[in-house]
Amino acid sequence: MEIVFKPIGIVHSPFKRKEDAKKARCIDPKGFDSVQGELEIFPEFSEGLKDIDGFSHIILIFAFHKAEGHRLYAHPPFDGQQRGVFSTRSPSRPNSIGVTVLTLLKRKGNVLRVSGVDMIEGTPILDIKPYTPKEQKPGAKFGWLGQWVTPPQNLETKTKK
Amino acid sequence: MEIVFKPIGIVHSPFKRKEDAKKARCIDPKGFDSVQGELEIFPEFSEGLKDIDGFSHIILIFAFHKAEGHRLYAHPPFDGQQRGVFSTRSPSRPNSIGVTVLTLLKRKGNVLRVSGVDMIEGTPILDIKPYTPKEQKPGAKFGWLGQWVTPPQNLETKTKK
Repeated sequence: MEIVFKPIGIVHSPFKRKEDAKKARCIDPKGFDSVQGELEIFPEFSEGLKDIDGFSHIILIFAFHKAEGHRLYAHPPFDGQQRGVFSTRSPSRPNSIGVTVLTLLKRKGNVLRVSGVDMIEGTPILDIKPYTPKEQKPGAKFGWLGQWVTPPQNLETKTKK
Repeated sequence: MEIVFKPIGIVHSPFKRKEDAKKARCIDPKGFDSVQGELEIFPEFSEGLKDIDGFSHIILIFAFHKAEGHRLYAHPPFDGQQRGVFSTRSPSRPNSIGVTVLTLLKRKGNVLRVSGVDMIEGTPILDIKPYTPKEQKPGAKFGWLGQWVTPPQNLETKTKK
């Protein structure tokens, strides 16, 4: 069984290559918050952006188009260990799909100005969804990541020293 | 440009048909919280589940395999208006991808017992990711949805009367 998708748009990012997104940003839960970019939605899908303006955050679903290999294990850049790929956000996974919550700054026609960008230039956009209360999970526990981030207090997170 | 994915597993849900997930649950942000089901990961991907156990929540990416049509507008069941599809979670969207944050109750080999299930039986699983602090956005605003849910306080949300 194969499931086929076609991009609805493309990401414009200050990161031109995979190597441009530095390790330090990956460690800090807020490391990408200030990184701005644009989501260019192809004109034929532009009407679907109606009503998006009122949301402060959106969920971007995209393809890791530069991912190499479909591994079952990953080595997170800030962690010395090998982790099961489904407990990581590694791009090299069986289906190379990425999910990132972005801050929506502005819509101008078929272009969304956003911050929180951790994708590279040219990333194919598969879908955009509104960020809703269902995505907010108070008291969540973060497994092996817990040693790298302190538990959120009122959803404020900090990187451990 | 086409992007091709293959399912890594299948959802087992108490909802056998689309119609079984009632409108009332869709209105309440916690409406699906108590709905349990299982994620059966195909054995060849089972190793990728290592380390997932420690996470209280996971992000499920799946295909809306029963979605019909690829519309640019949606009519949410609790809202009398036509909304741009990218500001809704409608299954009938250009790329029929679903994203749901689930509570991870237990792992037994290649099967994850979860709650928060809003998919139907047989839904193809595309990916599983850990839920991290990056998904937690304090003070988020929910656009047109805001009239249906009260703003979260310490991430606790309520349905408006």
